[in-house]
Amino acid sequence: MSDALGPGAIGLFDGILARGPVRHAVGDGAWLQAMLDFESALARALARAGLIPADQAHTIDRACRAEDYDVAALGRAAAAIGNPAEPLVRALTARVPGAAAGQVHRGATSQDVVDTAMMIVARDALDRLRVDLDGGGDAAAALADRHRTTLMAGRTLLQQALPVTFGLEAAGWLAGLDAAAAALDDVRARGLAVQLGGAAGTLASLGDAGSRVLGFLAEELDLPAPALPWHTARARVGVLAGALGVAAGAIGKAARDVILLAQSEVAEVREGGAGGGSSTLPHKRNPVAAVSAVACAARAPGLVATLLASAWPEHQRGAGPWQAEWRPLRDLFETVGSAAAWLRESLAHLEVDPARMRANLDRSGGLLLAERVTGALAPALGRLPAHDLVTAAAAEAVGSGRPFADVLAARADVRARLSPDEIGRLLDPAGYLGSTGVFIDRALAAHAARRSPPGGGAP
Amino acid sequence: MSDALGPGAIGLFDGILARGPVRHAVGDGAWLQAMLDFESALARALARAGLIPADQAHTIDRACRAEDYDVAALGRAAAAIGNPAEPLVRALTARVPGAAAGQVHRGATSQDVVDTAMMIVARDALDRLRVDLDGGGDAAAALADRHRTTLMAGRTLLQQALPVTFGLEAAGWLAGLDAAAAALDDVRARGLAVQLGGAAGTLASLGDAGSRVLGFLAEELDLPAPALPWHTARARVGVLAGALGVAAGAIGKAARDVILLAQSEVAEVREGGAGGGSSTLPHKRNPVAAVSAVACAARAPGLVATLLASAWPEHQRGAGPWQAEWRPLRDLFETVGSAAAWLRESLAHLEVDPARMRANLDRSGGLLLAERVTGALAPALGRLPAHDLVTAAAAEAVGSGRPFADVLAARADVRARLSPDEIGRLLDPAGYLGSTGVFIDRALAAHAARRSPPGGGAP
Amino acid sequence: MSDALGPGAIGLFDGILARGPVRHAVGDGAWLQAMLDFESALARALARAGLIPADQAHTIDRACRAEDYDVAALGRAAAAIGNPAEPLVRALTARVPGAAAGQVHRGATSQDVVDTAMMIVARDALDRLRVDLDGGGDAAAALADRHRTTLMAGRTLLQQALPVTFGLEAAGWLAGLDAAAAALDDVRARGLAVQLGGAAGTLASLGDAGSRVLGFLAEELDLPAPALPWHTARARVGVLAGALGVAAGAIGKAARDVILLAQSEVAEVREGGAGGGSSTLPHKRNPVAAVSAVACAARAPGLVATLLASAWPEHQRGAGPWQAEWRPLRDLFETVGSAAAWLRESLAHLEVDPARMRANLDRSGGLLLAERVTGALAPALGRLPAHDLVTAAAAEAVGSGRPFADVLAARADVRARLSPDEIGRLLDPAGYLGSTGVFIDRALAAHAARRSPPGGGAP
Amino acid sequence: MSDALGPGAIGLFDGILARGPVRHAVGDGAWLQAMLDFESALARALARAGLIPADQAHTIDRACRAEDYDVAALGRAAAAIGNPAEPLVRALTARVPGAAAGQVHRGATSQDVVDTAMMIVARDALDRLRVDLDGGGDAAAALADRHRTTLMAGRTLLQQALPVTFGLEAAGWLAGLDAAAAALDDVRARGLAVQLGGAAGTLASLGDAGSRVLGFLAEELDLPAPALPWHTARARVGVLAGALGVAAGAIGKAARDVILLAQSEVAEVREGGAGGGSSTLPHKRNPVAAVSAVACAARAPGLVATLLASAWPEHQRGAGPWQAEWRPLRDLFETVGSAAAWLRESLAHLEVDPARMRANLDRSGGLLLAERVTGALAPALGRLPAHDLVTAAAAEAVGSGRPFADVLAARADVRARLSPDEIGRLLDPAGYLGSTGVFIDRALAAHAARRSPPGGGAP
Repeated sequence: MSDALGPGAIGLFDGILARGPVRHAVGDGAWLQAMLDFESALARALARAGLIPADQAHTIDRACRAEDYDVAALGRAAAAIGNPAEPLVRALTARVPGAAAGQVHRGATSQDVVDTAMMIVARDALDRLRVDLDGGGDAAAALADRHRTTLMAGRTLLQQALPVTFGLEAAGWLAGLDAAAAALDDVRARGLAVQLGGAAGTLASLGDAGSRVLGFLAEELDLPAPALPWHTARARVGVLAGALGVAAGAIGKAARDVILLAQSEVAEVREGGAGGGSSTLPHKRNPVAAVSAVACAARAPGLVATLLASAWPEHQRGAGPWQAEWRPLRDLFETVGSAAAWLRESLAHLEVDPARMRANLDRSGGLLLAERVTGALAPALGRLPAHDLVTAAAAEAVGSGRPFADVLAARADVRARLSPDEIGRLLDPAGYLGSTGVFIDRALAAHAARRSPPGGGAP
Repeated sequence: MSDALGPGAIGLFDGILARGPVRHAVGDGAWLQAMLDFESALARALARAGLIPADQAHTIDRACRAEDYDVAALGRAAAAIGNPAEPLVRALTARVPGAAAGQVHRGATSQDVVDTAMMIVARDALDRLRVDLDGGGDAAAALADRHRTTLMAGRTLLQQALPVTFGLEAAGWLAGLDAAAAALDDVRARGLAVQLGGAAGTLASLGDAGSRVLGFLAEELDLPAPALPWHTARARVGVLAGALGVAAGAIGKAARDVILLAQSEVAEVREGGAGGGSSTLPHKRNPVAAVSAVACAARAPGLVATLLASAWPEHQRGAGPWQAEWRPLRDLFETVGSAAAWLRESLAHLEVDPARMRANLDRSGGLLLAERVTGALAPALGRLPAHDLVTAAAAEAVGSGRPFADVLAARADVRARLSPDEIGRLLDPAGYLGSTGVFIDRALAAHAARRSPPGGGAP
Repeated sequence: MSDALGPGAIGLFDGILARGPVRHAVGDGAWLQAMLDFESALARALARAGLIPADQAHTIDRACRAEDYDVAALGRAAAAIGNPAEPLVRALTARVPGAAAGQVHRGATSQDVVDTAMMIVARDALDRLRVDLDGGGDAAAALADRHRTTLMAGRTLLQQALPVTFGLEAAGWLAGLDAAAAALDDVRARGLAVQLGGAAGTLASLGDAGSRVLGFLAEELDLPAPALPWHTARARVGVLAGALGVAAGAIGKAARDVILLAQSEVAEVREGGAGGGSSTLPHKRNPVAAVSAVACAARAPGLVATLLASAWPEHQRGAGPWQAEWRPLRDLFETVGSAAAWLRESLAHLEVDPARMRANLDRSGGLLLAERVTGALAPALGRLPAHDLVTAAAAEAVGSGRPFADVLAARADVRARLSPDEIGRLLDPAGYLGSTGVFIDRALAAHAARRSPPGGGAP
Repeated sequence: MSDALGPGAIGLFDGILARGPVRHAVGDGAWLQAMLDFESALARALARAGLIPADQAHTIDRACRAEDYDVAALGRAAAAIGNPAEPLVRALTARVPGAAAGQVHRGATSQDVVDTAMMIVARDALDRLRVDLDGGGDAAAALADRHRTTLMAGRTLLQQALPVTFGLEAAGWLAGLDAAAAALDDVRARGLAVQLGGAAGTLASLGDAGSRVLGFLAEELDLPAPALPWHTARARVGVLAGALGVAAGAIGKAARDVILLAQSEVAEVREGGAGGGSSTLPHKRNPVAAVSAVACAARAPGLVATLLASAWPEHQRGAGPWQAEWRPLRDLFETVGSAAAWLRESLAHLEVDPARMRANLDRSGGLLLAERVTGALAPALGRLPAHDLVTAAAAEAVGSGRPFADVLAARADVRARLSPDEIGRLLDPAGYLGSTGVFIDRALAAHAARRSPPGGGAP
């Protein structure tokens, strides 16, 4: 399983809490390169606007490689000034030869660098997150398709209620994951933007060229241009955080269901794959992937709250709220990415036990179909008398331990209307699934459309 | 001001914490009528699907008036069963005469009632919230337009940094409010849906008519139909919550800025209107509306977190998470609605003091323009020497208390390149506003487009 | 069940989400009386300090009855000034005849009234909450005592792991509830305080008598006196909120366990009492009380976060953070109180099925004791070989479906060391409970000490 | 400033967001050593209980040095099993020679290791946090003492209200920090505990020696012994989190006040020290330390909420909630530790400008004392007429721009009762400070007692 962690430093808890590719997308290296990408793109934008010669932009561009910079030194220096962009700009300027050095970072403020980097990092992290979310969706879709007619007990308030199929349960997970992925795609497509405003959001030092440079910068980085700088209008961050929080919910929901289905007493699924054995308890098989997904997803709501609470920076640039976003956003991406990777792992290797599902369903001896018997008797008896009759029969079955079908067949008032065969048919769960098939089809069709959009391009 | 509270019971803190029309939209009366609207629309949908006669639907419909039901009795009865829909269905059935009584709530489960009611309530609450959000936006737009060129100090980390105009500050508020409103409109248009799944989400008791009834129900209520029941796929709630959280942020940002500008030592704005006087301190004028907006907006992030954390209901219907949504969603609407009403009030009556803004800006004696002088000297001196020269001059001005212009003009190295007139021009804040005008125009244009969309319809 | 709601207006969701007596303790009526209690006690304190005549204090005191005031009118008037204390003081002054009217509220500011009222309300709410928390603890203690030796499967990660007794499970709930109750008692005893500082926390208008009046006020209200006013030092509120959050956790933990034990497939407990039946599904018995407890407890963490985030009021009195505390603190009390009432109800009527517990435990055919067999073989074989042998036997038992005891007895390497009787004894779960009894005793003893403290007074 | 970061890897944002010594106390190295300390102490406890020979305990102890283990390898291996303790135990066992290897980790489960390590780490982190919290407290105390009589405007809702002294403002910070530190000391002294329960919390494999071993383990680690294992009774974690959240509030409050006092227009304090200059804006001096403290403290409430929401682990050991605690607790310590380090830095080098404080206070021309004039006139005129008179005079002063004293002296109805000298005396802010001195003394005395407890020992 260690492959799932990829390169980079692994901490003691990272194997569990920072699984999958998203953690790298939001790591220091990615942030550093994204900040340098801003500076490089800004130089090109200045050149396109005629403010600096093209060759100076090239000169700056050549100095914008993350591997030439020392993260730890930047981190230490950041403390004196309150952000990591300022020391980076100083270090970059020192590496740029000649007159071009004087043009580094021209017109920009530190927050322009960090905010734009945040958006670049977010874009890449969203792309990686989507792979695991969609991978989990694909696995759920395969389960929904394969187990379209695999009967199981539908459970409400964790009590058996009516028959469903495992395909419907998986289709529910799928719909949740697809809704979350769609929300994230939306953010990816329309919710990001470059940042460029200069010290007070006016781009004053660029004279009247400011808004043009902003437009060029956006083109260079292939990110939308905002109507105006958003140093202290943080809706973008909130919307992104909210969508990640929704994704955590969809993941957590499916993972918790897996854990519940894997309980010793339910035993309808178990996680395959390599992990989950217990060294001291050989009979146990822990659903480690689903448990880890739950643990990762559970961190999301608090982080979203922190990001929403940071949306009040003062005046032109904030005194604390802005800086308060950096870690929670990184942590939110990391933990949702990890949750997605774990859920995908869990669902992709899920071993399903249809026989056990059927056995659990049959344990109630047909009582789950009582509602249906009521419906069959209602036209003749009236709804309320039918209900009372069936309730009494159900109580008798529970009390005596006899099969519900036998109890029903033994009653004269039932026998007068329903033959034993008819009773048997009514108590067959496979015949009382309503729109289950339609709903599964819809979820699968929506997923297929999402994965292979009509136009043929990637979603 | 009491008109802003409208009808309905007012609690001790409601005047401050539940201002405006949204509280009524999410009150018990609104929920009750929305639940009855579900039952009525369901009956009509059943009739359209041919499952019940049309006149039975009419009979049911006539019993669906909230004023005929006793909220307190329903609330008490709800405790025994765990939700308020079940006692309501019982009470409704008792009021429906004849055979129609047997068709009440047919095919549905309690959660279908409550979830659909939640969406109906949310739609109405969003409509009311939008009025106050857009009202706040209109007020911000008016300020941005009127004070397009009203000079003030741009502040970063609460330190004066560069000149801006008050119009730009207001345009920033406007952009934030518009972004939030757009996110809420999105939810309003695409994020709501009816709920109908029956006890286990299969619509089993409707046979193969279930998905058709679902479609008709959606039409009857003019809400989207979901692809499949979403009893335990709660992305809709999370997305709605997230958008409300973003709105709280945009409101809180503007309100806090008002408070900061109204400080005794800044005194660039003050709230007009009736309130805010202090009985014991006659010289004080508290920005009560902005303070109240802040207090209301501050509740949002925690409520959003609670709603996101409730997105994990188990299997077909959850054992706690579903019930955990009811109050936080109501509270979230109420508090964001109240915040929006207060901000609108604050901005609509904001008294702006351009002279004080200018005086505050001038206090630094031109130092805010130091960056500009550097830019003017850089071509001749080189950027770094120019920077050092200006920094030294600024330090001298601060240390000696002499005007920056005089210090500059007294230096031979400056005088060689800049005449006193040129220095004066460089230190004129009105000439160093960069793209301020463009940015204000963009924010105003976007707001105008939002308020009067090209097609001519309401937004 | 409706008795549990007591007097006062009941909303649609209050039966479920605002159960128990705490809601009344934090209702508008309680707040209003508490604010009046402050004014009355302040008058007495002023009299004791010699600042006003005693008869004026009596005159003020006679006007301090909540029933004489109109909550709705105060709520409306509060909007103009930003807090409900100011209009109350005005209304009170109007009701006080003669010269005493001029002494009403002397020296105090609105926040003194509201903060002290908050503490009075909190004290009463804590007292009521303790009753339900301790009632739940008593019920848990009774279960722990009665089922001290009732064998059940211990479950880790929701997989059967080792035998425990239901008494130990209940003792775990008990320990959690007692820890939470102790934390709340601590707050009750040492964490509350009156508030009196005047407009800027200096008690300036009381001259040099201020700190004496503060001391008398504390005595009059039987609350601790703070060293200095805490208008903007909100540790008290945070500590209170944290303790309530911890209580929610202890309640939620026990309630969720009940829900899990009540699952159809586990069926080791079920809730007795009147509720929980399903009208459409007669076989179901929902654990409504535990589900409601979970729903109520789930609201706590977000509310605690809001209160902690409000701990930053500016300078002498805050511009928003203070006002932001009112509703979250009330909601937090109400929801934790409701959760406690529900859990108490759930545990007090819990029906336990020891036979089913034993049957579930036996389903694994002794595999839960594999660790013990390893321990018995280790001295002879070495620990690792013993472990490998037992693991192989366990795998064979799982694979073949044969009883673990039979598989073990059939192996020559085991037979050489253990007789069938010895194997039987090793696989008897009753013999492998370790310190279970000791731990139950400790939890019961701690609870007994808490409920009947040595000194004989109330805890 | 980089010294403040100490040894260890520094990330891009760590200089700002993970300042101070606490980050090291909660880093991977500290966790690893703490887990090994558990194993070593467990071996000694087993030996004291007579379960293993003392020399085997020594042998195990010698293998328990963190530097012999590979964090990254453990982190990777943890993914397969769901926690880092299991691979560590395997690695440790491999390093222990001879028969002692068979005794490693005897009786314990992985959660015993991680939970006890969490407590060891927390103890050390609390000790380090206390140093910076108390350092901040000492700095606040010094300010309170030095500026005991330094007049400044008291501000409510960010409006000047009544005179206070800067000493009182600082005493308020001090009281908040001391309250937070006391709560943390409480947790340190009574809220931690070792964990030892074995797989299901029964210590089954230790026979009847379990509870004795638990007691010895506690002694070996100098931590309290719990009454029973707390694998799923997480009040300890919640109480710890709550106390850290309260500390964040006290820090954030003081830091925000510093930022507000440092505003260009207020300018009553500025941060000394090395940092805070702006490269592009030479006139600016950003309060970097206070801003960073705010940014760090703002993360706390969301993390506390996550930890409180994780307090519901299922049955004997949880399926997700436990694992969900690891990162939030670490992050919470790190961010509160960083906030404390920054605040200490800010306060320790705070430059106070008493002249500016006085100038700001005098700007209102005595209006802040209006309440006092009312009090002086009330005996003669009656309270309400006095209030009306003074309000009218205040309005005239504000409207005309004339000094309040002159306006008063010009009025016949005032002159009849107050001489110009008496008016001057009434409008002298130094004479209207009430209990300011008493309150400062109390805060200083409480702090002194905390720092040098009567018994002479360390607190």
